[in-house]
Amino acid sequence: MEEDILYHFSLSTKTHNLPEMFGDIKFVCVGGSANRMKAFAQFIHQELELPGNPEEIIDICEGTDRYSMYKVGPVLSISHGMGVPSISIMLHELIKLLHHAQCRDVVLFRLGTSGGVGLAPGTVVITDKAVDYSFRPQFEQVVLGKVITRSTELDEGVANELLQCSSELQNIPTVIGNTMCTHDFYEGQGRLDGALCSFSHAEKVEYLRKAYEAGVRNIEMESTVFAAMCRVCGLKAAVICVALLNRFEGDQITSSHDVLVEYQQRPQVLVSHFIKKRLGQIV
Amino acid sequence: MEEDILYHFSLSTKTHNLPEMFGDIKFVCVGGSANRMKAFAQFIHQELELPGNPEEIIDICEGTDRYSMYKVGPVLSISHGMGVPSISIMLHELIKLLHHAQCRDVVLFRLGTSGGVGLAPGTVVITDKAVDYSFRPQFEQVVLGKVITRSTELDEGVANELLQCSSELQNIPTVIGNTMCTHDFYEGQGRLDGALCSFSHAEKVEYLRKAYEAGVRNIEMESTVFAAMCRVCGLKAAVICVALLNRFEGDQITSSHDVLVEYQQRPQVLVSHFIKKRLGQIV
Repeated sequence: MEEDILYHFSLSTKTHNLPEMFGDIKFVCVGGSANRMKAFAQFIHQELELPGNPEEIIDICEGTDRYSMYKVGPVLSISHGMGVPSISIMLHELIKLLHHAQCRDVVLFRLGTSGGVGLAPGTVVITDKAVDYSFRPQFEQVVLGKVITRSTELDEGVANELLQCSSELQNIPTVIGNTMCTHDFYEGQGRLDGALCSFSHAEKVEYLRKAYEAGVRNIEMESTVFAAMCRVCGLKAAVICVALLNRFEGDQITSSHDVLVEYQQRPQVLVSHFIKKRLGQIV
Repeated sequence: MEEDILYHFSLSTKTHNLPEMFGDIKFVCVGGSANRMKAFAQFIHQELELPGNPEEIIDICEGTDRYSMYKVGPVLSISHGMGVPSISIMLHELIKLLHHAQCRDVVLFRLGTSGGVGLAPGTVVITDKAVDYSFRPQFEQVVLGKVITRSTELDEGVANELLQCSSELQNIPTVIGNTMCTHDFYEGQGRLDGALCSFSHAEKVEYLRKAYEAGVRNIEMESTVFAAMCRVCGLKAAVICVALLNRFEGDQITSSHDVLVEYQQRPQVLVSHFIKKRLGQIV
């Protein structure tokens, strides 16, 4: 291809010097919310003690409102919206960007929020296996009208390194467990409070109990395709999500704004610690 | 329920008077991009000749960055992000909002962008049937680990009324056709320019040819769940998407920014004309 337009980033190989802009990237952190990924970029800027004012950080994708992207030294922070299709578009264009920029040995992290399964709210889950609605570690991808199946195995070494990091920090209760990825927030996750609901409280609890028995500790909406695409492309990856509630106890997210903000910072603090260790800033 | 928290809208039945805020809504227009749905709200404000400054329009969901929402007289304009999961969360909370606000006889429109199948760029497609990757007019929803199938039939009367509107306007080439809804932008739509691609140009063209024969005129990523949820809830709905390119001729969106902006205004002009006719502002 003469030119590659990364349409949803509003970047292109012709109009942007991607090796110069991104060649030194070693860590890519992605998450659903644009505000949260901006806050993470500002946080890691302070943590890495980089020069410049973190408040003046610029959205590299400002030409579009599909995603936001911030670069802080060797760290790229990108929002991906909600759900498998939204993150998959971002990942296609990110992986092409890393290729065009000739990046090497990059580690990817998804930092997210989730519903906990049998966990206290605020617990951080490092994903062992990303599983589908039947608790299988696989992702079904449609290619030209045919369904193909991809493995969703994540990097065990990075997961264990993250768990070690959590033990070195205060107030970041962390477990390793399976993460169930669904394609909706209500019926697919067994919520009783959606616009549509065709099942009872007892049936919901039974489904969550089966999930728990299959090792599922949290439920979110992006992990399977994130794991599958990183794996196929040979990229090391980890998923770190905080549980905002315990789904055995309810469906609605009723914690106060301040409590939720503090919970959402936990994956950020954990990944920041990992990055600082890798960069030799913490011995 | 004592309180219903519409979490992704940052609204609640306890903290907001939903009947007072939304009780007069008659038209709900949704689209992927937050900027585009803000521009639509400002456009319809001018078209309906409402008092006040359209530039000062306020995002009702400003407490969150998941979605944006603007109210302009009887019209609600909401962004839904990209893909079925993202729009499905919005629709659950929107349908609950319309219920809490006691709205009656509401018509929903999805105004979007799409890839055309055998159409000139800039053509507007009013969806006849929303179909899946096998060209079936159905949506598969997982409920507690089981797949159920829902019909994706849209309102024929509204579609025909929209086609009539297009004939009354200049420069809005419009067809009625089937719309294929996929769960990704690259492999699922037969694009050769993603990070992953396992098929040839000939295989891509063959798939698009089959789609064309099944009546598919454009491809996007939200129509099936939009049609299915509106139908189950008894809401009249239509999907109006402009084709940004002809997929038989390429995969990348290479038109200039200005041309793309003008294309994206076409569904807005069409739906605005429909609303003005329904309100008796055009006889």
